[in-house]
Amino acid sequence: MRWSQTFIPTLKEDPSDAEIPSHKLMIRAGLMRKLTSGVYTYLPLGLRAIKKVERIVREEMDRTGALETLLPILHPAELWKESGRWDVYGKELMRPIDRHDREHALGPTHEEVITDLVRREIRSYKELPVTFYQIQTKFRDEIRPRFGVIRAREFIMKDAYSFHRDDKSLRETYMAMYEAYSRVFERCGLKFTAVEADSGAIGGDFTHEFMVLAGAGESEVVSCGCGYSATLDRARTAPWVETQKSGKLAPLAKVHTPNLKTADDVAKFLGVMTPFLVKTLLYQVKGETIAALIPGDRELNEAKLKHFLKVDAIAMSSPEQILECTGGPLGFSGPVGLEGVRLIADERLKGMENFVIGANEADFHYTNANLERDFAVTEYTDLVVARKDDPCVKCGKSVSITQGIEVGQIFELGTKYSEVMGATYLDHDGRERPFVMGCYGIGVTRTVAAVIEQSHDANGIIWPLSVAPYEIEVLPVNVNDEVLRKAGEDVYERLLRRGFEVLLDDRDQRPGFKFKDADLVGLPLRVVVGEKAMADGKVEIQVRRTGESTRVLLDQAPEQIQALIAAKKVY
Amino acid sequence: MRWSQTFIPTLKEDPSDAEIPSHKLMIRAGLMRKLTSGVYTYLPLGLRAIKKVERIVREEMDRTGALETLLPILHPAELWKESGRWDVYGKELMRPIDRHDREHALGPTHEEVITDLVRREIRSYKELPVTFYQIQTKFRDEIRPRFGVIRAREFIMKDAYSFHRDDKSLRETYMAMYEAYSRVFERCGLKFTAVEADSGAIGGDFTHEFMVLAGAGESEVVSCGCGYSATLDRARTAPWVETQKSGKLAPLAKVHTPNLKTADDVAKFLGVMTPFLVKTLLYQVKGETIAALIPGDRELNEAKLKHFLKVDAIAMSSPEQILECTGGPLGFSGPVGLEGVRLIADERLKGMENFVIGANEADFHYTNANLERDFAVTEYTDLVVARKDDPCVKCGKSVSITQGIEVGQIFELGTKYSEVMGATYLDHDGRERPFVMGCYGIGVTRTVAAVIEQSHDANGIIWPLSVAPYEIEVLPVNVNDEVLRKAGEDVYERLLRRGFEVLLDDRDQRPGFKFKDADLVGLPLRVVVGEKAMADGKVEIQVRRTGESTRVLLDQAPEQIQALIAAKKVY
Repeated sequence: MRWSQTFIPTLKEDPSDAEIPSHKLMIRAGLMRKLTSGVYTYLPLGLRAIKKVERIVREEMDRTGALETLLPILHPAELWKESGRWDVYGKELMRPIDRHDREHALGPTHEEVITDLVRREIRSYKELPVTFYQIQTKFRDEIRPRFGVIRAREFIMKDAYSFHRDDKSLRETYMAMYEAYSRVFERCGLKFTAVEADSGAIGGDFTHEFMVLAGAGESEVVSCGCGYSATLDRARTAPWVETQKSGKLAPLAKVHTPNLKTADDVAKFLGVMTPFLVKTLLYQVKGETIAALIPGDRELNEAKLKHFLKVDAIAMSSPEQILECTGGPLGFSGPVGLEGVRLIADERLKGMENFVIGANEADFHYTNANLERDFAVTEYTDLVVARKDDPCVKCGKSVSITQGIEVGQIFELGTKYSEVMGATYLDHDGRERPFVMGCYGIGVTRTVAAVIEQSHDANGIIWPLSVAPYEIEVLPVNVNDEVLRKAGEDVYERLLRRGFEVLLDDRDQRPGFKFKDADLVGLPLRVVVGEKAMADGKVEIQVRRTGESTRVLLDQAPEQIQALIAAKKVY
Repeated sequence: MRWSQTFIPTLKEDPSDAEIPSHKLMIRAGLMRKLTSGVYTYLPLGLRAIKKVERIVREEMDRTGALETLLPILHPAELWKESGRWDVYGKELMRPIDRHDREHALGPTHEEVITDLVRREIRSYKELPVTFYQIQTKFRDEIRPRFGVIRAREFIMKDAYSFHRDDKSLRETYMAMYEAYSRVFERCGLKFTAVEADSGAIGGDFTHEFMVLAGAGESEVVSCGCGYSATLDRARTAPWVETQKSGKLAPLAKVHTPNLKTADDVAKFLGVMTPFLVKTLLYQVKGETIAALIPGDRELNEAKLKHFLKVDAIAMSSPEQILECTGGPLGFSGPVGLEGVRLIADERLKGMENFVIGANEADFHYTNANLERDFAVTEYTDLVVARKDDPCVKCGKSVSITQGIEVGQIFELGTKYSEVMGATYLDHDGRERPFVMGCYGIGVTRTVAAVIEQSHDANGIIWPLSVAPYEIEVLPVNVNDEVLRKAGEDVYERLLRRGFEVLLDDRDQRPGFKFKDADLVGLPLRVVVGEKAMADGKVEIQVRRTGESTRVLLDQAPEQIQALIAAKKVY
């Protein structure tokens, strides 16, 4: 392709709304443009990269025996009501209404649609297992779209769904998908890690996320040198290893604590460390009030609470609900004397004594509160957001937290959807059984962004060969010099004939301008056709990633490039 | 691919909601399934055919130099308000509202989005002309989805948009697109015709539709032996060639015509032929009342009236508006004495005298009405729906009407969008000028249906080679016979190695069942591995389209198939 005949609108300046390198570079290198919040137009270069990723995904899916289909974007609301997700999915689900006032969902994920298809079409255990996949535009009405295509409202995903007789068969496909996903991301040139994750609204219990570790990301990954790693939603860390209990329980005392704004203020006033100012957080869950108790210096991890309660949705109690339940205002809740409330405590509380709790009365706390003596807790679990230097749940050493981009996730759904939607097959013994299901997603547009996030420098993108929009840029430094122009055309044609994907910068621009654009667009290889080298009939082959540069005779450029690739000097 | 490992749910019975062969066969051959009204899931075979059409479209678009992009599905309402189409597009536009209560459109067509991109990114005449295209899922909320994917609510389209300095450049690209479209449909094996068409809500003046003539279709094409052809919306036909006027004008008379239900009843009662009972139809157009006069036996063609008035929308006057304007009820309107109403008459009226009109009073008509004498008309045009045997507007011979499926349409838009959206470029003289635009669409899923509509028999689909999901089916008649099973595998592997796309029916089913499915799925070539022929080491090669059948030695099957294709015995 000639640069003059395609459309690569490069920009000198970073767009003002871009926070991370991949977002900035996808705009600046002319891969895409924003249409509206979280919605992007893919321009020729961007679309070529997307199609490269799609091809890799398709090849690896086909290799597992998964069958490509294309499910609709527009879903009838009835199916989502059948699964129960119409009510719990919340505002991220876009819900257009048609001319006959029928409600629809714009598919963010397709468990309902595929389960409906399979329950109609597959009757016998002999047809199992089977896996369907599709590559499709999806919608999620993010409250705050950001990071370009990483957290977008319209994006391209590969989603797959498998159907099985039993858990064993599901686990086999799950592992095959785990391997296929690993190959996909390896082939895309990504450094990634597969971590334990939370299944969120999709459901199911066994799940891994494929995280690309990058300086900037939308997810955080907790990991330990021992090999443990999990997303922040899911990561468990251990309580203090040694107990800090003295066994000397002081008497419970109600203390006036007026005019103190923060937990730290209260702790300081009462002379305790912040962790000992235990927080009591009230939630409404299916009509029941839940009180979650956690150390004062920690944040509640709602995903863990939902997981513990096995529910899809929880809501913080309103000030009115708190007043009605505790008799006191928001901010002063405590477990003493609460009736009709289910108490669930973070397991870190087991190691604590003589702590502070709210007194269910404005400006009052209890000091020297103690478990069992002052209030009874029967349920303990890990409820807090993991933190850097927490003890690893596996080995006890300090964990670290790194930022990552989730590019894929695989789930064992079990019978969550098939049971509620009545999707059954006839087993060999003549009995109806619900399908056991798995589901598997890869963010295609997000993978392109992750590649750039992990592979760029101050000057621009550094494309891996496998997903580069073109493999080689041919750059004649001056197209008004007939010798250079012709030599540029010559090497361009030779490379095309060899089957390379080549971009010829045939623009009449200053060399500095063209080199800057070449760095920005970041194709893996560059053939510079300049005056000096051409005096000897030579061109210069440059590797974008390493900066390595060699001069070769023009007609040897294709061989030299093939040799560089074979020697893995370009990848 | 092995039949046992893909998913081809064939059906014996026609689906009850399918009216036309392509719809029935796309369901029965397991190409797709309906999710909800006008919304389909594409199964593996259907998707393969769609991808074949997409590849042909992509190759022909690339060949014209058009640049592939991918525009968003979700459009901000603001852009549609800028173009004015938010108000005129009507209920076919789906309009989801996001979590922040912002209105959006689900793109049925992308003039606004591409014009917005180009006005931001393209500044100079040096960057023109440029054409962008995309292949994408589109939405149109049809009032009555029918004919399967032919009139669906969610469908795949290729749409392209070109930008130019002037009309001359636009016409060049238009003609290049005309040629490209012709190649696309030829390569898909379609018999088609390009006809003059109406531009509808898209706008623009010069436009052609590519119609596939088929027994059943959603469009009607008017054509004449002289070469004239146009869609029913657009087709002009001539008035009577010879005048039927006597020149003897009888006096206007008001006649009581009670209890007459139909136009025919009135005509009979008054002793005139139905055409002479002239209808006066009132419309509201941008606040003005328009009266359209047409012969009593004809239907008004609203597209022609809109085209004549150069407006996107017209609305029939309500009974209240008619009463206010004419003083009489609906059904008795006439042109005499109307004030503040613009009269537009079908040109056929020029040849008429002593005709009947409504008297703007219940149960009264005027007889012997005459143009000029009784009321003044200054605007004449062709206003009626063309009819079989009308005189051709070009040669005067009788036209015929055939059913067709519109698979593509090309438009010269001119500056309709660029002017209203302020999309300008800087011309060589330093002046800002609006882009001159064209737009070009192909219904991809509709093309697949059109192929089947034109190419099937009582037993099933007859795929053209170019868009067949697989090229060859290998059919061992009995997989429990080890010799036949192995021979089937052998020929399957040989054909795959030759680069053919092959489906092996490895199912343990009766031969009759497998042959029925083979006819239904309709791959162009079939290699039958049966007992008799195999006794001589031979297999039978059958051509689906012609029924032609030859026996060849198993290891010669690939050569024989290549020879059949080279000789155009399969196409």
